[in-house]
Amino acid sequence: MKSNAASRQTNKVEVSVYECEIHLKFRLIEEKCALGDRDELLDLLIEAFTSGADDYMELIEMRVETEEIADLDASPQMRRQLMRLRNSSELT
Amino acid sequence: MKSNAASRQTNKVEVSVYECEIHLKFRLIEEKCALGDRDELLDLLIEAFTSGADDYMELIEMRVETEEIADLDASPQMRRQLMRLRNSSELT
Repeated sequence: MKSNAASRQTNKVEVSVYECEIHLKFRLIEEKCALGDRDELLDLLIEAFTSGADDYMELIEMRVETEEIADLDASPQMRRQLMRLRNSSELT
Repeated sequence: MKSNAASRQTNKVEVSVYECEIHLKFRLIEEKCALGDRDELLDLLIEAFTSGADDYMELIEMRVETEEIADLDASPQMRRQLMRLRNSSELT
């Protein structure tokens, strides 16, 4: 058990939990019927956005933020995954 | 059934400009070095998000909004594209 060393952050793999925030605002030319399906809406918009700005899409605003947070703020499932990763030497 | 909308705007194809807003907030397990490249950050986060919630990603908040806006609020390039689409019968 090298738990002490591990807790002082001598991790083999430097993984952490991050709180990520993406805010995108853009104008999009689209067919009216295409935006009606709420379930598909996010996928459709993300696809439209990631295909890049052109005559069909113009970016208005984009904000991306990441912040490292304490492990304890994540769910138990996520913390377990984190422990597995930190104790594994397989991850590169 | 299609008489009202169709007769008020005699567009062959019902395309419009929409202002779209996506707000995503989630926790993500990631290697520290992976988030350092600002240019790649958005792509990496979108990919992580779209691969779905699992032990590596948990959703905190998601908001998706679309609002039809007046053509005049779009750029000239976008308006031209809109005219082309409305005057074309090729779009399906």
